[in-house]
Amino acid sequence: MDEFDLIEQCFKPLAHGFPGSLNLTDDAAVFSVPNGFELVATTDAMSEGVHFIGNEDPSLIARKLLRTNLSDLAAMGAKPMCYLIAGMLPKATKADWVKRFCEGLARDQKEFGVHVAGGDTIATLGPLCLSLTALGTVPTGKAIKRSTAKAGDTIFVSGTLGDSALGLASLRGQFKKLGKDDAEYLEQRYLLPQPRLWLGHQLLTVASSCMDISDGLVQDLGHICKASGVGAEIESKKIPVSEAASHAIALSPEHGISVLTGGDDYELLFTVPKEKLVAVPKDCTAIGVIKAGKEVTVLDDKGKPMTLAHKGYSHF
Amino acid sequence: MDEFDLIEQCFKPLAHGFPGSLNLTDDAAVFSVPNGFELVATTDAMSEGVHFIGNEDPSLIARKLLRTNLSDLAAMGAKPMCYLIAGMLPKATKADWVKRFCEGLARDQKEFGVHVAGGDTIATLGPLCLSLTALGTVPTGKAIKRSTAKAGDTIFVSGTLGDSALGLASLRGQFKKLGKDDAEYLEQRYLLPQPRLWLGHQLLTVASSCMDISDGLVQDLGHICKASGVGAEIESKKIPVSEAASHAIALSPEHGISVLTGGDDYELLFTVPKEKLVAVPKDCTAIGVIKAGKEVTVLDDKGKPMTLAHKGYSHF
Repeated sequence: MDEFDLIEQCFKPLAHGFPGSLNLTDDAAVFSVPNGFELVATTDAMSEGVHFIGNEDPSLIARKLLRTNLSDLAAMGAKPMCYLIAGMLPKATKADWVKRFCEGLARDQKEFGVHVAGGDTIATLGPLCLSLTALGTVPTGKAIKRSTAKAGDTIFVSGTLGDSALGLASLRGQFKKLGKDDAEYLEQRYLLPQPRLWLGHQLLTVASSCMDISDGLVQDLGHICKASGVGAEIESKKIPVSEAASHAIALSPEHGISVLTGGDDYELLFTVPKEKLVAVPKDCTAIGVIKAGKEVTVLDDKGKPMTLAHKGYSHF
Repeated sequence: MDEFDLIEQCFKPLAHGFPGSLNLTDDAAVFSVPNGFELVATTDAMSEGVHFIGNEDPSLIARKLLRTNLSDLAAMGAKPMCYLIAGMLPKATKADWVKRFCEGLARDQKEFGVHVAGGDTIATLGPLCLSLTALGTVPTGKAIKRSTAKAGDTIFVSGTLGDSALGLASLRGQFKKLGKDDAEYLEQRYLLPQPRLWLGHQLLTVASSCMDISDGLVQDLGHICKASGVGAEIESKKIPVSEAASHAIALSPEHGISVLTGGDDYELLFTVPKEKLVAVPKDCTAIGVIKAGKEVTVLDDKGKPMTLAHKGYSHF
């Protein structure tokens, strides 16, 4: 595998349609941000054995990497524009692996209207590491931040929570009795998250704060509270759970905690002031309320505060 | 080491002074690109055992990572603005290592007027990998590209070439008889490259094409020629060589090839049309000329074409 052939054959086609990429011939990409818009920039990395097992279809690894970054843009209400990607590949990586990886990128580029603008491909002596920087735009001054939630705001989430953590458990063989359809649904949620770009865009004029749930609901809500200088109270019974997740939890109740602390769902968690409640899309679910203070309280089915051993995912 | 403590203590102070970083509390950075300017974006990665040995002072690793990216901005004539950084750290990484790494970033942030705007810190099961995306600005339409060299243009380089490859050889103990000052000079050139940002800025209205020399002069000149659809002829005797490099090569003549094919110098390689020659800064050196065709020819001391076994660095 030659580094420059790789760029020529696999990555250059992904740059077509984005003139700012300069066809990946240059040291850097060059492009303008439209008048009236600000740039939004985010970086998310993944590593073999931590974020993925390693034997997955490379196209799925690529799409998850891109999607987790697009999810960060969604959380700010931004529209994606382009991305830069760094692949730190074991020397033994086959050209076919890279081709399949780029097929995944190509597919999601079409789905989300983005292009590769640049990147770097280097060798590593260890397992595969990947990093991606996604760039998008948002109307100037309108980005939805974490630090602007206010006491009295209602807390919402999109989609359903816990699916991804349960999907990973399923892939690890922890749900022997779960139906095939349910298992596949949950695994797919883990393997291929859906960045809520359209919802983020809709929330630009509605939400007082927003983030994507990547490390678990309780931990991530804690980030909003810390940044905003507020507390929160959520009711566990209100948290939206998929049918497949309900089945898995009914079989293995100890996995119920995934709904509160499981990572990788990439749903949006956002707060809405009273006067904007009518504008919240109907498929989002109110799960609690922002309060004065700084604690995140989770009420159980009987309305009593729960004690959680840990609140979400941490790398170290 | 806690992921969130790490961000709080080590990375947040690096974001102060750049409001677009949102103090690293959010999913992404948000900032505007001034009117009349375009955004310039580049990503460069490094891995332990490939780009650095691993036992270096972490602050030097950080500074080299930042500087190699700033060098890409310099090659486009861009002014650096901010950067996003991804650290893929072995689980056993000590908090002190990260602190020292961030001290290096802090030092170079001051020197080059940039700030961290975002990033990601994850665990890897293998050796350390790092990726950085640098963002800068350039007056709209003025970025210096690789694809615009023309036959008849004079080829220039900044600084001296080969120092970094010789410095790496010295660090590996290959120059037992080299004087201490010379060895230190070359090693420092390898450990801490100097991004030629001011020169790149001066070249905005002068150079017809430009890139930074990261993989070796001959290979990198080949990139300009390929992108521009031209050939080139350079004279090896004109290539600027430092005193320390001359001493090293005199002791070990087989290392002379470093001047032509050694990587990591991060000097600028650029072409200038006849009518702009007077505007080239005096400390740059003319080494050859762009010609019709597509070959890069290197003439030896007697003016005869040289045959090179390999032209520069490739990762795979």
